[in-house]
Amino acid sequence: MPKLIAIDWGTSSFRAWLLGARGTVLDEVPSGPGILSVPEGDFDAAFETALGHWLSTHPDLPVIASGMITSRNGWIETPYLPLPLDARSLADALTAHVTKRGRRLHFVTGAVRNPDHGLPDVMRGEETEIIGHLAASAVAEGLFVLPGTHSKWAWVEDGRLTGFDTCMTGEVFAILRDHSILGRLINDGSTSSDAFRRGLEAGRGEGALLTRIFSARSLALMDRLEEGEIADYLSGLLIGDEVAGALSSAQGPVTIIGRGDLAERYRVALAHAGAEATLAAPGMARAGLWEIAKLAGVIG
Amino acid sequence: MPKLIAIDWGTSSFRAWLLGARGTVLDEVPSGPGILSVPEGDFDAAFETALGHWLSTHPDLPVIASGMITSRNGWIETPYLPLPLDARSLADALTAHVTKRGRRLHFVTGAVRNPDHGLPDVMRGEETEIIGHLAASAVAEGLFVLPGTHSKWAWVEDGRLTGFDTCMTGEVFAILRDHSILGRLINDGSTSSDAFRRGLEAGRGEGALLTRIFSARSLALMDRLEEGEIADYLSGLLIGDEVAGALSSAQGPVTIIGRGDLAERYRVALAHAGAEATLAAPGMARAGLWEIAKLAGVIG
Repeated sequence: MPKLIAIDWGTSSFRAWLLGARGTVLDEVPSGPGILSVPEGDFDAAFETALGHWLSTHPDLPVIASGMITSRNGWIETPYLPLPLDARSLADALTAHVTKRGRRLHFVTGAVRNPDHGLPDVMRGEETEIIGHLAASAVAEGLFVLPGTHSKWAWVEDGRLTGFDTCMTGEVFAILRDHSILGRLINDGSTSSDAFRRGLEAGRGEGALLTRIFSARSLALMDRLEEGEIADYLSGLLIGDEVAGALSSAQGPVTIIGRGDLAERYRVALAHAGAEATLAAPGMARAGLWEIAKLAGVIG
Repeated sequence: MPKLIAIDWGTSSFRAWLLGARGTVLDEVPSGPGILSVPEGDFDAAFETALGHWLSTHPDLPVIASGMITSRNGWIETPYLPLPLDARSLADALTAHVTKRGRRLHFVTGAVRNPDHGLPDVMRGEETEIIGHLAASAVAEGLFVLPGTHSKWAWVEDGRLTGFDTCMTGEVFAILRDHSILGRLINDGSTSSDAFRRGLEAGRGEGALLTRIFSARSLALMDRLEEGEIADYLSGLLIGDEVAGALSSAQGPVTIIGRGDLAERYRVALAHAGAEATLAAPGMARAGLWEIAKLAGVIG
């Protein structure tokens, strides 16, 4: 019997689950429009289009959503929650919203680290995945990385999220490939794990990152890197630099919350840097949404 | 009386000079098509269009050119000269080329640093500017920076270019501004030297560069940076990181070979990092072309 509709609604992704008792998955909508793909920002229409079949079959089922949907470019903008935070504080900070058709939604807000001195940082969505992992694994401490367009490195102490950093690796890789001189020589080849590892080595090197990335071109000009290898080399270089920077301020085993090829790249990069890394079980976003909804008393 | 036509022909720039005795400037063509702007790669036509008035008036005047014009995307591709090099070795390596109309040109080739271990690097054009500065100033030692789309840091010992690094700062700034999420909040404001200095401070900071650049967004989201200040902040952050990386491997006073606002930004960044910096006199490209042509016996 369905208990909750849970939505992970990001910048370029949309996933939703129909959850039953104890958060078991009864049905899934695996894809939909990310918030930047919603025509004219009509989130009411996008919501009905994506989930109408569940909404009409289960008119009284509570709905909870997390991710960039609560950002300035989203459905409603909710204030960030300061650190430290846990599932309880996220549950207490849920924002209720009634759609044009009268459906009640609960939005999980994002997190902010905004020190008086030093640089601020923000996240929307990843806090829910971290909470999900803590709830699912009964872990209360650790260093986590969530690979993505903007990867997040997060520190958990005593069951609470106490710090995090954003790294723009994924986005910068894409714009270097698509818009910089480094992309001109790139030929899409088959994936080269050797080129990726050579990139990791350069990523750990000395000197400015924007100097080291030029080697993706100069190695090719010297015939020391094939055109089909440049993309993997550059990916390794950026991820290697990211991992070295993260491990310079935090030690210990790292848990990767993510899936597929990108999560595997981070696993290899962490091992290359001498850090123990484990992959979290899949489904952490929906686990977090379930946990927060439960604590908030939203589930009927 | 004219002695030489000298051309500095880069990726996105073209400048040429009609030089008289001792390299004095008799006339100048201040702009023309960079090599990527030459229609269908017809460099013969571009050359005639840009300089036809000089070519017909002075049919026997020698012509010398340096820059990306000798690259894979240029008129002819010439092999890079390995380090160390000086004006004499560049003069000995001139490549003669006869145009379709029978005009004889001399191309100055670029430089390569290609160690067995470690990353290679290449330049085309900057070596001529450095040679020009050495000839004009009688300096034989030092650390030089040539700001640009790809800035170059170069080491000179005993009158010879012994090492250099490329840093993609200018190009990465442009693509972050034009294609990344950081650009979305940017409003062109008046130039803010305060925001530039705040960026320099973040550029000297700890952790991965791709983490620190995200502060150009998060500071704005926190209302700690105005939208009109984001571009200058980001510029400072990237240049600050570049300068910190360069000074970590080389100390001593720095000579900036460049002009205008960008050269001034590097001067401020170097001073902020505690390094003494001086600005080279203008005209180093033509001074280098003159020196190389003189040593090669090209000048009539």
